[in-house]
Amino acid sequence: MRLDPERCQERMAAARVAHLATTGRDASPHLVPITFALDSAAGRALLVTAVDRKPKSTFALRRLRNIVENPKVAVLCDLYDEDWTRLWWVRADGRAAVATGGPDRDAALAVLCAKYPQYRSDPPGGPVIMVTVTAWSGWAFTG
Amino acid sequence: MRLDPERCQERMAAARVAHLATTGRDASPHLVPITFALDSAAGRALLVTAVDRKPKSTFALRRLRNIVENPKVAVLCDLYDEDWTRLWWVRADGRAAVATGGPDRDAALAVLCAKYPQYRSDPPGGPVIMVTVTAWSGWAFTG
Repeated sequence: MRLDPERCQERMAAARVAHLATTGRDASPHLVPITFALDSAAGRALLVTAVDRKPKSTFALRRLRNIVENPKVAVLCDLYDEDWTRLWWVRADGRAAVATGGPDRDAALAVLCAKYPQYRSDPPGGPVIMVTVTAWSGWAFTG
Repeated sequence: MRLDPERCQERMAAARVAHLATTGRDASPHLVPITFALDSAAGRALLVTAVDRKPKSTFALRRLRNIVENPKVAVLCDLYDEDWTRLWWVRADGRAAVATGGPDRDAALAVLCAKYPQYRSDPPGGPVIMVTVTAWSGWAFTG
């Protein structure tokens, strides 16, 4: 069954890992696992994720270079289980921007540290990617 | 630590779920979870996955339309655990083709049914996607 946008947001907000797809000018899709947090306050849906260490330049890491070249991204969360009646997935399509510093990055790090205790002693040192979600899709074998 | 191509293939072959990223002419990355099998015989690495039900046309499903428009794809497997020293991921970049019938599709369905008992009573009815892997990347917190 299809999941409505509200259910999609609930499931994604609770997930601990997601997958980020980006595509630069060379039209090759790129894919990495990410930790992330979803901020659904005030009607907007903003998904944030951070790069662990500061790259030598914003263009040194392929996901960042791709976003600068093409802000369209997709983020997917899913559950796999050998009992296929438990399967589900949720996808957020959106437009990404990179914050290398300033209040946007600080706010993103705060929500990431709130969600992941692992970050509290060792916060990410690199840029933050902020995805403004423009469309939700989702499916579950059962509701 | 970086994983060498041999370790990447071993980890991906053993994984039960992966994520497939495709990008069509519109430059929007698309992302779905997939069941898959990896055939590493005879020095080649061919990754296969199937569509559950036959779409109305090859172009009716976005991953298929994207592959027809642009064969470049990425496939990712990863492990998430709250103990971040256990994290790893493996990515296969490659070129995809779609088989709607014939011996290639039959061979792909055979390896998928061998890997997933769930398929044996209800084999996928749709086209098969075959990815010829051109590059492996992988990372693990610990070897």
